Amino acid sequence: MQHFWLSILSGLCLQLVLPCKAEEGLEFPNFDGKDRVLDINERNYKKALKRYDLLCLFYHEPVPANKGLQKRFQMTELVLELTAQVLEDKDIGFGMVDSQKDAKVAKKLGLEEVGSVYVFKEDRVIEFDGELSADTLVEFLLDVLEDPVEIINNAMELRAFERMEEDIRLIGYFKGEDSYFKAFQEASERFQPYIKFFATFEKSVAKHLSLKMNEVNFYEPFMEEPAILPGRPLSEMDIIEFVNQHRRATLRKLRAENMFEIWEDDMDGIHIVAFAEEEDPDGYGFLEVLKDVARENTNNPELSIVWIDPDDFPLLTTYWEKTFKLDLFRPQIGVVNVTDADSVWLDMSNDEDLPTAEDLEDWIEDVLSGKVNTEDDDEFADDQEDDRYVLEDGDESPGPDEEDDEDD
Amino acid sequence: MQHFWLSILSGLCLQLVLPCKAEEGLEFPNFDGKDRVLDINERNYKKALKRYDLLCLFYHEPVPANKGLQKRFQMTELVLELTAQVLEDKDIGFGMVDSQKDAKVAKKLGLEEVGSVYVFKEDRVIEFDGELSADTLVEFLLDVLEDPVEIINNAMELRAFERMEEDIRLIGYFKGEDSYFKAFQEASERFQPYIKFFATFEKSVAKHLSLKMNEVNFYEPFMEEPAILPGRPLSEMDIIEFVNQHRRATLRKLRAENMFEIWEDDMDGIHIVAFAEEEDPDGYGFLEVLKDVARENTNNPELSIVWIDPDDFPLLTTYWEKTFKLDLFRPQIGVVNVTDADSVWLDMSNDEDLPTAEDLEDWIEDVLSGKVNTEDDDEFADDQEDDRYVLEDGDESPGPDEEDDEDD
Repeated sequence: MQHFWLSILSGLCLQLVLPCKAEEGLEFPNFDGKDRVLDINERNYKKALKRYDLLCLFYHEPVPANKGLQKRFQMTELVLELTAQVLEDKDIGFGMVDSQKDAKVAKKLGLEEVGSVYVFKEDRVIEFDGELSADTLVEFLLDVLEDPVEIINNAMELRAFERMEEDIRLIGYFKGEDSYFKAFQEASERFQPYIKFFATFEKSVAKHLSLKMNEVNFYEPFMEEPAILPGRPLSEMDIIEFVNQHRRATLRKLRAENMFEIWEDDMDGIHIVAFAEEEDPDGYGFLEVLKDVARENTNNPELSIVWIDPDDFPLLTTYWEKTFKLDLFRPQIGVVNVTDADSVWLDMSNDEDLPTAEDLEDWIEDVLSGKVNTEDDDEFADDQEDDRYVLEDGDESPGPDEEDDEDD
Repeated sequence: MQHFWLSILSGLCLQLVLPCKAEEGLEFPNFDGKDRVLDINERNYKKALKRYDLLCLFYHEPVPANKGLQKRFQMTELVLELTAQVLEDKDIGFGMVDSQKDAKVAKKLGLEEVGSVYVFKEDRVIEFDGELSADTLVEFLLDVLEDPVEIINNAMELRAFERMEEDIRLIGYFKGEDSYFKAFQEASERFQPYIKFFATFEKSVAKHLSLKMNEVNFYEPFMEEPAILPGRPLSEMDIIEFVNQHRRATLRKLRAENMFEIWEDDMDGIHIVAFAEEEDPDGYGFLEVLKDVARENTNNPELSIVWIDPDDFPLLTTYWEKTFKLDLFRPQIGVVNVTDADSVWLDMSNDEDLPTAEDLEDWIEDVLSGKVNTEDDDEFADDQEDDRYVLEDGDESPGPDEEDDEDD
């Protein structure tokens, strides 16, 4: 029953519980009690689509009969209400679509995954598959409101562009807002806000990037050199197809805004997961090694490493430590089976130094060949071939991992 | 009455409201209903202090009689409960101290600000004055648990150190863990986790930083050259005094973990506030100019600019846009009066290019001399000398803003 408080508290800001501070300027929003979220149905959905720049719909299961679940459901509504209130001046409509009662509307709108949020912008539908908190949703919607193509005008903006190594980015050089630019822009709308599109009309910027007129470059995260899209000028479909083929990066950072999407995009049921705090000297060093490995293996379609910076997910850190039996004050790399969260981790605890790029490549090769996998320990926990690998359910305890906790 | 939902929803993650995903590995924590937060009183406070590595106490006003306020209070408790649950394995105690019922205990513990969270670690007390959400508090406590001095062993870690330009950092070169290092360590504990302390025992690292044996350097955020602490070897008090004198930086970034502390540390009732999204080419460029200005004026004790990256505060972005009448899709700089949130902003809307460092310095000079201030518009809204400045309460309305607001 109390479970519905659960995640409510994730980001709960107590500031308003505290006595008023004398200073003004940092007030977190209060839900004002006004209903802004529409109950979408056959009669009003077309009007809602027309009326707003963006329409943000939560596609949900029927309201449950159980009281505890009802409260949860109300909380969901309240998150949408707060998001709607915060974004009140932005011309965004919000609504709920019941998968049973409004099945026809859902079909017409193309809603598929119950529990997802769908954002309608002009003739496009964007699925939000991130952490469904007000913070993350607000940030996502603000990103969707921006122009899908950002123009790079000068050397300073170019430097900003070059620093965004964590993102998938495309940049094109165009004469101006001509038909080729428009094709690029149309393509960009398909991927907004997940993939970033830039354009320049400046010869000096293009020269610095070695971009020819009407050429488009694709930057995979953490890679030094871009891929050049074949052919020019490019049609909208040329660009869309290229991006779809290349969007799973060799090294991808988990972010709140698309964490579930990335997690669902596993490689045959597993993920290679690396934990590294970028702000920590150890973590930074490990990440640099990881980037080297990714750069060396960027053409291997079998390889995609999910990098998680624990600093970005404070509430998940101890959950991961428990689930994977890890110390996340240190960098870690392992294989996670996404169906049961079973995992096996590279043992770096006894090394003074972090593994080299070669060590990591050897280990990754063992993972890809199946030599290192999450299943061996289930059957042969006592019988490890290689003690460099720490099994998730504890390399010192011979028994199954349900063992009683004897200390404390 | 509904106001207590307010900020509850800030970071509410709906993931558990959604139907179960097939994948495992990203489960946000559920509050399990178990009480972990102690009611601290005269009988148990000493035991609590002894028992845990860290003790985290919320110092609160008496439980209100009003039902709505009571609910808010319960939410506060639940945030602490969730934090306690998430950090269950970390040997951290949590408690509540009633400012009335437990006045004696509060006095003995040195608790002063009702509404604050105090963290006890060994013989130190650390006040938490950030956004009181479970995310931020968990991250803060994890930081407090780490060693207060991080050792830099090699070139890679040195690079990580050099990248942390947003933080106040100290680094010392010591022979090993001798008495001089210990003095440095003792000093570091006073500032953990707000100010970062590093040490190296490696000659090559020291040489790269031009550090002599037993010397300590102080890096102000965004400055290229460090200040050298006078004298060596340094005592704990030498270091503490130097840090206290220099901790208000010329350019400081607002962060969730100390946002209220920074905001309370105003300069004669005002803040110079710059909004700039670092991930945005425009914002990045503006920030680079701002850094140049800060570097030029680092010795001016009158100047401290608060940089806010709107990306870090999605729920406050539209509040700021409304309060300050700004478009935060673009960079902005202005003066905010912290008592009434009255403000005046540099007009950059008509410029193709961002202001140069010289433009900004001229404007800052006008702010510091009082020529640009938040009060003029109250009296002479019609009579502006310089139309580069946009007045926050609307430069088109002629009346003083203390009178009844006629429009709207």
